Amino acid sequence: MTKSPKIIQIRKNILEDNDINAQKLRDKFKKHKILVVNIVSSPGSGKTELLTKLIPELNKQGIKVSVIVGDLKTENDANRIKKTRASTYQIQTDGNCHLEAHMIENALKNIDWKNSDILIIENVGNLVCPANYDLGENLRIVLMSVTEGEDKPLKYPTMFNSADVCVISKIDLAEAVEFNKKLAITNLKKINPDLKIIEASAKTLTGIKTLAETLIKY
Amino acid sequence: MTKSPKIIQIRKNILEDNDINAQKLRDKFKKHKILVVNIVSSPGSGKTELLTKLIPELNKQGIKVSVIVGDLKTENDANRIKKTRASTYQIQTDGNCHLEAHMIENALKNIDWKNSDILIIENVGNLVCPANYDLGENLRIVLMSVTEGEDKPLKYPTMFNSADVCVISKIDLAEAVEFNKKLAITNLKKINPDLKIIEASAKTLTGIKTLAETLIKY
Repeated sequence: MTKSPKIIQIRKNILEDNDINAQKLRDKFKKHKILVVNIVSSPGSGKTELLTKLIPELNKQGIKVSVIVGDLKTENDANRIKKTRASTYQIQTDGNCHLEAHMIENALKNIDWKNSDILIIENVGNLVCPANYDLGENLRIVLMSVTEGEDKPLKYPTMFNSADVCVISKIDLAEAVEFNKKLAITNLKKINPDLKIIEASAKTLTGIKTLAETLIKY
Repeated sequence: MTKSPKIIQIRKNILEDNDINAQKLRDKFKKHKILVVNIVSSPGSGKTELLTKLIPELNKQGIKVSVIVGDLKTENDANRIKKTRASTYQIQTDGNCHLEAHMIENALKNIDWKNSDILIIENVGNLVCPANYDLGENLRIVLMSVTEGEDKPLKYPTMFNSADVCVISKIDLAEAVEFNKKLAITNLKKINPDLKIIEASAKTLTGIKTLAETLIKY
């Protein structure tokens, strides 16, 4: 059984609607001179933990941050991020496997985004579906933790191809999991030669300053 | 923007079609007295690595295994599993975020499933979408690696609720990542009180025999 033309057309329409909504968001963010970052990864790659270290580093450099975070259920991540004092809103997708531009538009009503320099969107943990949904961001960061294995870029090419930056997270565990960094970087570059790669650890703070500077300079 | 009734209806039809195809598969597997296991998890939780240890253990106990493995791209996982000599077929979904019953029906033409006692289906690494697609399995096993954090069952309730067994994988790393086992088990039981939980490590072989026995006894 292959997909019917009707289903393909409807999926195309959903993506086209999203693209229109995302462009409206991008125009709005540009008007307010706000950098918007969409962070994507597998579940458990350490997106939230990274943000709890990245946001204070950005604040130290005079940068105000607001955050929208997406999960199927729970307010857990928003509660963790709120401890940094960033204006934060949790979207609960109730089963939806990714965020869409119209959800971001709605979420903006609940945070003080106009007073921030950077809006960070932490997407639903999913290395497939979020790849196709533009959220009006300027920069897409994909996390790949050392515990996930080196071949993820080859297996999930759309996600790694659509990203601007790859953060290799939990780098402090590299030795314990026998992470082959050379192979991982070869695979990343094979899928996306322009990808900027940053090694990071929320535990040891490795790479947090570099990531903050990358955002500030963007 | 909420989803239109038209889109909701089409999604419902896709799931209904899949359920019909899955039931046909289940009838076929029953006729041939084959146990079918659907293994799901986040990307990089160690499904393939676990299978490279589980299959030889099953073989030792006289159980023949065939395998269907799903990924968006690459034959990597099938190549790793073939080293166990199990009859193995790789489905490349080319962007699709989950396996569907009709893909399994097609894949059966390429493996010696009728001569096996257990057919193992390794799903696409994704903790959201595969939850809704019955593949005609008798048993669904979800992997949760200790590196992913303890709150995954709460954040991805459909997946953990639809599983029969949860393998807590990479248990050898528990100390290094400060895994809170008690909290993880509390969260798992909260979502699914009937879930059988097995701690395992493909590295130290912890839990591999228990998992093999669980399948044999099923």
